[in-house]
Amino acid sequence: MIKTRLEKLTASLRTSNLDAVILNPGPTLKYLSGLNFHLMERPVVLFIAPGKDPALVLPELELPKVDLFPYKVQAFAYGENPSEWDDAFRKAAQALGLDGKRIGVEPRQLRLMEFRHVRAGAPEADYPDASEVFANLRLRKDKAEVDAMRKAVKIAQDALEAAIPHIKIGTTEKEIAGELVVQLLRHGSESDLPFAPIVSAGPNAANPHASPTDRKIQAGDLLVVDWGAAHGGYISDLTRTFAVGEVDEEYKKIHKIVQEANAAGRAAAKPGVPCANVDIAAREVIEKSGYGKYFTHRTGHGIGMEGHEAPYVRGDNMQLLEPGMAFTVEPGIYLPGRNGVRIEDNLVITETGAESLSDMPREIRVVGG
Amino acid sequence: MIKTRLEKLTASLRTSNLDAVILNPGPTLKYLSGLNFHLMERPVVLFIAPGKDPALVLPELELPKVDLFPYKVQAFAYGENPSEWDDAFRKAAQALGLDGKRIGVEPRQLRLMEFRHVRAGAPEADYPDASEVFANLRLRKDKAEVDAMRKAVKIAQDALEAAIPHIKIGTTEKEIAGELVVQLLRHGSESDLPFAPIVSAGPNAANPHASPTDRKIQAGDLLVVDWGAAHGGYISDLTRTFAVGEVDEEYKKIHKIVQEANAAGRAAAKPGVPCANVDIAAREVIEKSGYGKYFTHRTGHGIGMEGHEAPYVRGDNMQLLEPGMAFTVEPGIYLPGRNGVRIEDNLVITETGAESLSDMPREIRVVGG
Repeated sequence: MIKTRLEKLTASLRTSNLDAVILNPGPTLKYLSGLNFHLMERPVVLFIAPGKDPALVLPELELPKVDLFPYKVQAFAYGENPSEWDDAFRKAAQALGLDGKRIGVEPRQLRLMEFRHVRAGAPEADYPDASEVFANLRLRKDKAEVDAMRKAVKIAQDALEAAIPHIKIGTTEKEIAGELVVQLLRHGSESDLPFAPIVSAGPNAANPHASPTDRKIQAGDLLVVDWGAAHGGYISDLTRTFAVGEVDEEYKKIHKIVQEANAAGRAAAKPGVPCANVDIAAREVIEKSGYGKYFTHRTGHGIGMEGHEAPYVRGDNMQLLEPGMAFTVEPGIYLPGRNGVRIEDNLVITETGAESLSDMPREIRVVGG
Repeated sequence: MIKTRLEKLTASLRTSNLDAVILNPGPTLKYLSGLNFHLMERPVVLFIAPGKDPALVLPELELPKVDLFPYKVQAFAYGENPSEWDDAFRKAAQALGLDGKRIGVEPRQLRLMEFRHVRAGAPEADYPDASEVFANLRLRKDKAEVDAMRKAVKIAQDALEAAIPHIKIGTTEKEIAGELVVQLLRHGSESDLPFAPIVSAGPNAANPHASPTDRKIQAGDLLVVDWGAAHGGYISDLTRTFAVGEVDEEYKKIHKIVQEANAAGRAAAKPGVPCANVDIAAREVIEKSGYGKYFTHRTGHGIGMEGHEAPYVRGDNMQLLEPGMAFTVEPGIYLPGRNGVRIEDNLVITETGAESLSDMPREIRVVGG
């Protein structure tokens, strides 16, 4: 399966006007090798070019991993002294005849450190952004990938249900986050979680990217929980918003609006329509309610091996949805200094519409009692 | 305190022949801001130059964080459309007058994505590697930092003790890793662990960077556990090696050799001696025993906010140890295809010697019964 992915990639290079691509440790390298490499202070880079065995530059102590590749690779190992490293990169680039060629890179994953070593090895090459090549490669999930994501969603949902009884008035955001992580692992998530859960209440909930704090949750707070699990290298990324005890009528109202926006976004998702339609459908609900300026982010992002990948669910993204594409639908309303709501599901486009992998109740639920 | 760090950094720029530095989300940005920013597909970059308020480029939805900075920053926020982003970078660079100047970067942290945006904003600038400037800034831990590390060590040790009773013959490496993570969180680690624990037994233990597998541990295996906790933004990174049931005499022997090498490395650590001395002291023990070629990595690395930072404990590092420097001592012996041993402690240099923050028994212990 992984060898097929490699073949698909090399076949796509010609149409992208690329002679090769390079990858450092991260999801795409894992997708194309099946292996976990660590992002360390020592560079690991895989060079891929059509018609040749890929070349791998790596520290000597990682050499045992070379035999685990599902295809033949040429290994160029270096020792502990950084002054030797460029030489290994030069040899790898030469083995594939890459200097002066067009070598595609992944700028959101590749660090300047690795890039500078690669460029020292092939100083005359061009390094265009190949993010779209990799995004296209990983864009349509196959059945095994969707099954892994479905399991990651189930683990996450079961874990939050198990954590909810631990949520009391006076519990801190950090304590709730800690309990949720424990439950994620107890329910079978890989221990390398996709991200640290966001647990934010009251004023903190007004920041969509809040980190859990030592603030104790209080009656009247909305409580945003944004969490996910990992299974088989694939992740889930969900959000539900709860009421802590009795909350203001306005907060119930914005929760209901976001719930309707989430439903509208999900209903708009089907093959053949632009990603933008999902964003527009969700956003319209919030704008019509008068809270448009408090929905400060796009409606969603692709999901798979990463939390943030293609396709992006933005109002200006005219990319057409296709079966196998997977993404979040996560509208929100954030009232600065007061409270916030977000409701997030994970969708996969099917032949006829979209399946929500997540089905945990979206209605406002009261916790903390 | 954080403002003092910023002043110390800007004061050091002149002697480093730098006009400014840039930082993306990561430990150094946290060290200099006290804030957690996520490494996302959207760039966040802080520009720091002497005599001016730092400039921060960030997505609009992160704007609430600007007020949390412990000093004044000029914010340059951008919207959802990537075509606008370069403009925000241009304005930030202009606000600090940086085009054509020398802007220090952190190549192991900065991604090509952020770098290309910064360069679009200041195309005539030079971007020298400022890793040493940042390393020097963070190198000597103050009392609060050491206290946080001591707590992170205690959490880790208590967690492993609590996990040991769950280790049985027939338990898989992954199951042990999962239980250990649960115990780390139960004992108070931050939920964003410093790294996923390595739990590797038998042939897997021969790979110093193994990932836990579904292999069941067997009598006769050595079991390497390399794990750590996070507390207050600081981490621990420890390793102990256990015997699963009865093991070969040779495995007991290599365990004893590594234990002696670890003790020799710790004993060599004191102010005024080169980092190299610690590596040499540990390595000599293993070389004299005849297993020198199976100790395939350096003896240790700095530790603090990150698992891998300065000072590096390598045989060729002549940097002198100073009070407050913190690092691991982690010699190992790896017999390919058979078994491996590593014993790792976390040290801080004191005025007169070194303190090991970790004190969990280093002798071989039998587990799995």
